[in-house]
Amino acid sequence: MVHHVVPATAETVHWGYFSRTLEPILSIASGDLVTIETLTHHAYDDHARMIAGDAGAESVFHWTKDQKNVDRRGAGPLDASTYGRGSGEGLGVHICTGPIFVHGAEPGDVLEVRILDVQPRGSRNPDFAGRAFGSNAAAWWGFHYKDLLTEPRPREVITIYELDASGAQNWARAVYNYRWVPQTDPFGVVHKIIDYPGVPVDHCLVMENHSILKGIRVPVRPHFGIIAVAPREAEFVDTIPPGYFGGNIDNWRIGKGGMMYYPVAVPGALFSVGDPHASQGDSELCGTAIECSLTGTFQLIVHKRDELGGTPLADLHYPLLETADEWVVHGFSFADYLAELGEKAQREIFTKSSLDAAMRDAFRKMRHFLMTTKGLSEDEAISLMSVAVDFGVTQVVDGNWGVHGILKKAIFTADDPVRVV
Amino acid sequence: MVHHVVPATAETVHWGYFSRTLEPILSIASGDLVTIETLTHHAYDDHARMIAGDAGAESVFHWTKDQKNVDRRGAGPLDASTYGRGSGEGLGVHICTGPIFVHGAEPGDVLEVRILDVQPRGSRNPDFAGRAFGSNAAAWWGFHYKDLLTEPRPREVITIYELDASGAQNWARAVYNYRWVPQTDPFGVVHKIIDYPGVPVDHCLVMENHSILKGIRVPVRPHFGIIAVAPREAEFVDTIPPGYFGGNIDNWRIGKGGMMYYPVAVPGALFSVGDPHASQGDSELCGTAIECSLTGTFQLIVHKRDELGGTPLADLHYPLLETADEWVVHGFSFADYLAELGEKAQREIFTKSSLDAAMRDAFRKMRHFLMTTKGLSEDEAISLMSVAVDFGVTQVVDGNWGVHGILKKAIFTADDPVRVV
Repeated sequence: MVHHVVPATAETVHWGYFSRTLEPILSIASGDLVTIETLTHHAYDDHARMIAGDAGAESVFHWTKDQKNVDRRGAGPLDASTYGRGSGEGLGVHICTGPIFVHGAEPGDVLEVRILDVQPRGSRNPDFAGRAFGSNAAAWWGFHYKDLLTEPRPREVITIYELDASGAQNWARAVYNYRWVPQTDPFGVVHKIIDYPGVPVDHCLVMENHSILKGIRVPVRPHFGIIAVAPREAEFVDTIPPGYFGGNIDNWRIGKGGMMYYPVAVPGALFSVGDPHASQGDSELCGTAIECSLTGTFQLIVHKRDELGGTPLADLHYPLLETADEWVVHGFSFADYLAELGEKAQREIFTKSSLDAAMRDAFRKMRHFLMTTKGLSEDEAISLMSVAVDFGVTQVVDGNWGVHGILKKAIFTADDPVRVV
Repeated sequence: MVHHVVPATAETVHWGYFSRTLEPILSIASGDLVTIETLTHHAYDDHARMIAGDAGAESVFHWTKDQKNVDRRGAGPLDASTYGRGSGEGLGVHICTGPIFVHGAEPGDVLEVRILDVQPRGSRNPDFAGRAFGSNAAAWWGFHYKDLLTEPRPREVITIYELDASGAQNWARAVYNYRWVPQTDPFGVVHKIIDYPGVPVDHCLVMENHSILKGIRVPVRPHFGIIAVAPREAEFVDTIPPGYFGGNIDNWRIGKGGMMYYPVAVPGALFSVGDPHASQGDSELCGTAIECSLTGTFQLIVHKRDELGGTPLADLHYPLLETADEWVVHGFSFADYLAELGEKAQREIFTKSSLDAAMRDAFRKMRHFLMTTKGLSEDEAISLMSVAVDFGVTQVVDGNWGVHGILKKAIFTADDPVRVV
């Protein structure tokens, strides 16, 4: 068993898209450990706290008139011919580290991802030693955006949070907020709203309000918004809508100690991690979490298709979370939007968001899990879901909206050896 | 402070409707205690276990060719001229104990309901001494009903659960299930589906399957599906859709130790309790919980409108739950469907169910709570909701579907005396 280390640099990340065509940055064996640095795409909301002095972040975010280290940001055209925002058009926003090729992983297999450790990335600016920072953007894609009470309407607001980099304190607090004002990127494009990731924010143009959310401690729940295998359907896939391949699930339970299972769609799985969060509430209401760079340690294990029968992974066609106490299924407005919505899927999905559909998908997946893994009849599964499974709103901001279903392991006692896995 | 006791009998219940015109069964002072028996409307799914030998239940459920002790069941016409199901037409199904007139409660005030104790109602049949029972109906109004995998489709299934009546065991287990088959009520009406509450189930006609959900322990979460004040808008209101007046919220967190706050809509509030549940999952997926008769002890406190400023109850226009650790707001597809949908509201609401709308209502209510009670700006409230408030699916089966938002009290620390209530 080898332990690999992957720093986040301009060479090890892909920004805003998944692609089965990407060259792997690393190849590993099933069972290997890998420590992976991930960077939040919101770091430039406060360069001083989240980029300055950090060689990896500086490498990824470097953007001057003459040089943009990571040019493509999003699954859109390289020449920005659709909206003129920039290369990739920001159709997909998350910085992902990877992809990693896992030897032996083939379509039909299941990739198990054990999240062994998650640590915040401390500020490398000596002025902020010992602290880590994150940004929460209440943005145009948020659930609240067209439904504001107070002027000016609409508006986008960035709130910077800080937490203890050592992990000794389990809470974050707000440092300040500011209203987004038009920002001109180094190539001269004006971004009136937050329509392209990694645009440098000029703090001379914004007004920082430092007396906010006083006395409020936000519980820290470090997790990865994105853990993904590469989807099979399209060459370039926007990182925003989650799907069968995982991706931007944005469930805060996908943290340390968790185990995720994904159906492998392409040879080698092509595993990527990104969208690190310090904290998020169920729904991710305003569009983002506390977006905060994190480093994770993972063990990746391939389960071959023909060895899955009779295990909890039998016939797994969706991303499944196992924690110490729970099984969690993830429903989406469309279980497999890339296949279901056809060629225009990557545009259409943003017009068809619905919790009602996501609830239906979560119901179907939990029923499948109970019938397949636990051997229940359909009548048993449906009754049990109604009296003992909790469904919650994962997110209402990622195009393919999410509802999760939580099944407590303790429900299954040891006195029925046939049914207990 | 007086401690009243209200048994459940044919004289102390109203079945399937709320009404501002009902004669109170009791008048109490603000601050009084009242112990209230409640009966599940599903008790006749297993007469031997849930009615036999129980004088109160026998009084309420008594129905022969010559005598039906509680005739009206539902807000429909007394002569069953709409569907022919029976008096009240089953437009509303829950047995509610009450109403109780609370002296001093006026429209605009808030009624606080402290749930001091909740106990299961043990079977009064000596064959089942020490046990309590409940019924889970996977019924035609369930989320799953038109989406079944296995034959026969569609079907309705009753699952009988049992629990320890003393409360020593904190779990329930399934006893058996059976498929609903047409049942002829004592007046000769055939009920092909579960379309009228309290229809006697002839166990000679059904096949009991006793080997189900083996080894599975369902955590017990005793709570009241319904706690209500009388709505102002209509004379007879179906008990199924919840609203600003509370009613059928179906949140399992409304149990022992909880405190509910309701905006008073009519003089005396006209407080009722019903729809007792032993356990429910968030979503109540198949249409019901473990429907199980319970007895609760409550303290009812009137907060006068002009004393609410600066308190957590300022401008309260929705049902609010406080537990030891949390504040919980309840969003619905329509916050006040009776007013919003006009004259046909009680029919229309069942055609307009949506979690998307309920999520929006829950967002607005949580924002109101944070801005009013906690004194946050809108920007502070929206950021905090995204990073620290959890939204969940309360129910998808009550017409006016529900999403709740959970705010942890621990977020508010004592080091900011201005903002902490």
